[in-house]
Amino acid sequence: MEKTEAERGASENENEKQQQEEEEQVVNPWQVSAKEGGKIDYDKLIEKFGCQRLNQTLVDRVERLTSRRAHVFLRRGVFFAHRDFNEILDAYERGEKFYLYTGRGPSSEALHLGHLIPFMFTQYLQEAFKVPLVIQLTDDEKFLWKNLSVEESRRLARENAKDIIACGFDVRRTFIFSDFDYVGGAFYRNMMEISKRVTCNQVVGIFGFIGEDHIGKYCFPPVQAAPSFPSSFPHLFSGKDNLRCLIPCAIDQDPYFRMTRDVAPRIGYQKPALIESLFFPALQGETGKMSASDPNSAIYVTDSEKEIKNKINRYAFSGGQDSIEKHRQLGANLEVDIPIKYLSFFLEDDAELEHTKKEYAAGRMLTGEVKQCLIEVLTKLVERHRRARAAVTDEMVDAFMAVRPLPNMFN
Amino acid sequence: MEKTEAERGASENENEKQQQEEEEQVVNPWQVSAKEGGKIDYDKLIEKFGCQRLNQTLVDRVERLTSRRAHVFLRRGVFFAHRDFNEILDAYERGEKFYLYTGRGPSSEALHLGHLIPFMFTQYLQEAFKVPLVIQLTDDEKFLWKNLSVEESRRLARENAKDIIACGFDVRRTFIFSDFDYVGGAFYRNMMEISKRVTCNQVVGIFGFIGEDHIGKYCFPPVQAAPSFPSSFPHLFSGKDNLRCLIPCAIDQDPYFRMTRDVAPRIGYQKPALIESLFFPALQGETGKMSASDPNSAIYVTDSEKEIKNKINRYAFSGGQDSIEKHRQLGANLEVDIPIKYLSFFLEDDAELEHTKKEYAAGRMLTGEVKQCLIEVLTKLVERHRRARAAVTDEMVDAFMAVRPLPNMFN
Repeated sequence: MEKTEAERGASENENEKQQQEEEEQVVNPWQVSAKEGGKIDYDKLIEKFGCQRLNQTLVDRVERLTSRRAHVFLRRGVFFAHRDFNEILDAYERGEKFYLYTGRGPSSEALHLGHLIPFMFTQYLQEAFKVPLVIQLTDDEKFLWKNLSVEESRRLARENAKDIIACGFDVRRTFIFSDFDYVGGAFYRNMMEISKRVTCNQVVGIFGFIGEDHIGKYCFPPVQAAPSFPSSFPHLFSGKDNLRCLIPCAIDQDPYFRMTRDVAPRIGYQKPALIESLFFPALQGETGKMSASDPNSAIYVTDSEKEIKNKINRYAFSGGQDSIEKHRQLGANLEVDIPIKYLSFFLEDDAELEHTKKEYAAGRMLTGEVKQCLIEVLTKLVERHRRARAAVTDEMVDAFMAVRPLPNMFN
Repeated sequence: MEKTEAERGASENENEKQQQEEEEQVVNPWQVSAKEGGKIDYDKLIEKFGCQRLNQTLVDRVERLTSRRAHVFLRRGVFFAHRDFNEILDAYERGEKFYLYTGRGPSSEALHLGHLIPFMFTQYLQEAFKVPLVIQLTDDEKFLWKNLSVEESRRLARENAKDIIACGFDVRRTFIFSDFDYVGGAFYRNMMEISKRVTCNQVVGIFGFIGEDHIGKYCFPPVQAAPSFPSSFPHLFSGKDNLRCLIPCAIDQDPYFRMTRDVAPRIGYQKPALIESLFFPALQGETGKMSASDPNSAIYVTDSEKEIKNKINRYAFSGGQDSIEKHRQLGANLEVDIPIKYLSFFLEDDAELEHTKKEYAAGRMLTGEVKQCLIEVLTKLVERHRRARAAVTDEMVDAFMAVRPLPNMFN
């Protein structure tokens, strides 16, 4: 008998434990680490999770359907994997709409660039497809996992909402909610529909919980699953139980949605589709996600121009050679070069990026010059974000977070 | 190191498993069964659970504090055990108020007499102490444990609310809520505060869940725990975080509140106090609770006069002798006689009860006569309930279930 998606995840999580002992890579919502000394092997991850590569045909199709250039993150494979994204496009082509769902666990005051990626991309999807969007702030999750009070988690959720709004979402199509405020009623009923169909053994298999873990952890996966079903938002999608959901997220969130996709048909809903990104590498090199405990591993949206310059010059791992002579002769190793990685995320101009890569690889450009280019790009990006965030008022946060119908969400 | 209340329960639940194998009694929220062929040993239960006997001194104190005769269920030991009820009375004597919390899992259309007991008693407590009351309808629990849809559980909750209201609660002091409708906000935040402090191992120990059980079960205990804390009801008890809670319930619910009492001080709340009842015996004899799967094991509030008469005459286990001659000579064994048990719950007149017991035990009254007396008492009770329930309108249900302040709840 074929294994279900979640069981596939489950048994492979057991493998994961073995692999961990063999110092293989570990990717789950709370831990991302590559095989010792190596990089995350995304091909292996796709195979293990059972999702699909997002290929050029799909990117072309998105461009055709939206009549605009695909987002940099699509063109350059930042969003590199998916589940049923093709079906979402099939339906869209037939004139059927869908809704977007993404989220954030508000555990820190300031976001770093890696945090912005799903929001920048989701903002593009919303604008390109003209569809509604729900953004879940899992303040309950952060309360359960971190040493935070309920009130502090809620405060961080609201602070983070300002950064999210600053990414340019359309208030006529966007509903942002905090679990601590919104869970209840139809949403809670869906949580229970899901909880009834997932066993303790299954969450242990999928998420690696142990007996000493508190039951809050065991109860949380249905909270992250529930927004995948339109009936969790009666003020938005009443009578639209068949509306499909597309979830842009980093691939470490895949276990939640493997579980959700298994449950969906058993409670009469469509499986959510996914479009999944790479991890944004740490300044020190591409071995995993950035570490919140080391402020020098990431550029924060609150960093000053000077801090950005300093961090990049001091910490960004370089693929250039040790001496200028050697560099002129051998050129840079782009595979491990962090400034080039960062530019491939954030430098919009394809021609300039290609030129930089070519010159740098050939040794005609030096690390210092590439870093200078990155400093300019990121300073501009962070400055733009800071201005946008400063313009977000409390009234705007209230407007985005109000439980309200969105009559023009599909127009 | 002394064991916590919940740990005490936990380790004794392990004993329970052993005991079960030795055919000892099992009492938990989902199973009540005596040692084979025997009766529930309540002394053993008190010792095992670690609660206290409710003695005559406490009953006298209640009478003094409320300036009225104690309820039949108190005078006759139907509510026979407690936790910190004396502290509630101490506080009350100092002029501090408390609130009552009780509930029901709405799994059936019609209630039987056993279901009415906590509500009849709670109605008396509310009236005698003039305190507010919250009544939780755990439609989520019944959805999770039984083969019921969300909608059917919610419908049953509302139907059961009518029977509960018919017990005479004061709408100015009573808030009835369904979990599927009310869970959220402050209530959900308390659920998470509790969930974070209870491990998977602990709920396995306390409730006997297994790995194949769905996570809905693991998540439910905090739902039943949350109403023990006043902050779960901001529309009622805002700013009254120190208000104590008294929970009248059958003793099979004790495991939930052992867990709750362990968590309470760790999240800054008072432990809820408890006042706990015996089980109402089945018509066939006192070996446990009544069985919902056998309609002839109980008198329902929907039974007709003829059905009541028939059930009592045909099924009520008699302690009388096989022949009239032998009965006149030896008298009845009141210890096993169900009509006498039922009369001791529902015949209000102490003198008449004593007289009946004396005459029956001496063989001067026959089983048929005692049954006739019981038929009259229960027919009257059921008829009174039926009339009261018929008078409960949908508007009244809405009024009791409205999320609203109760400005006169302590007057």
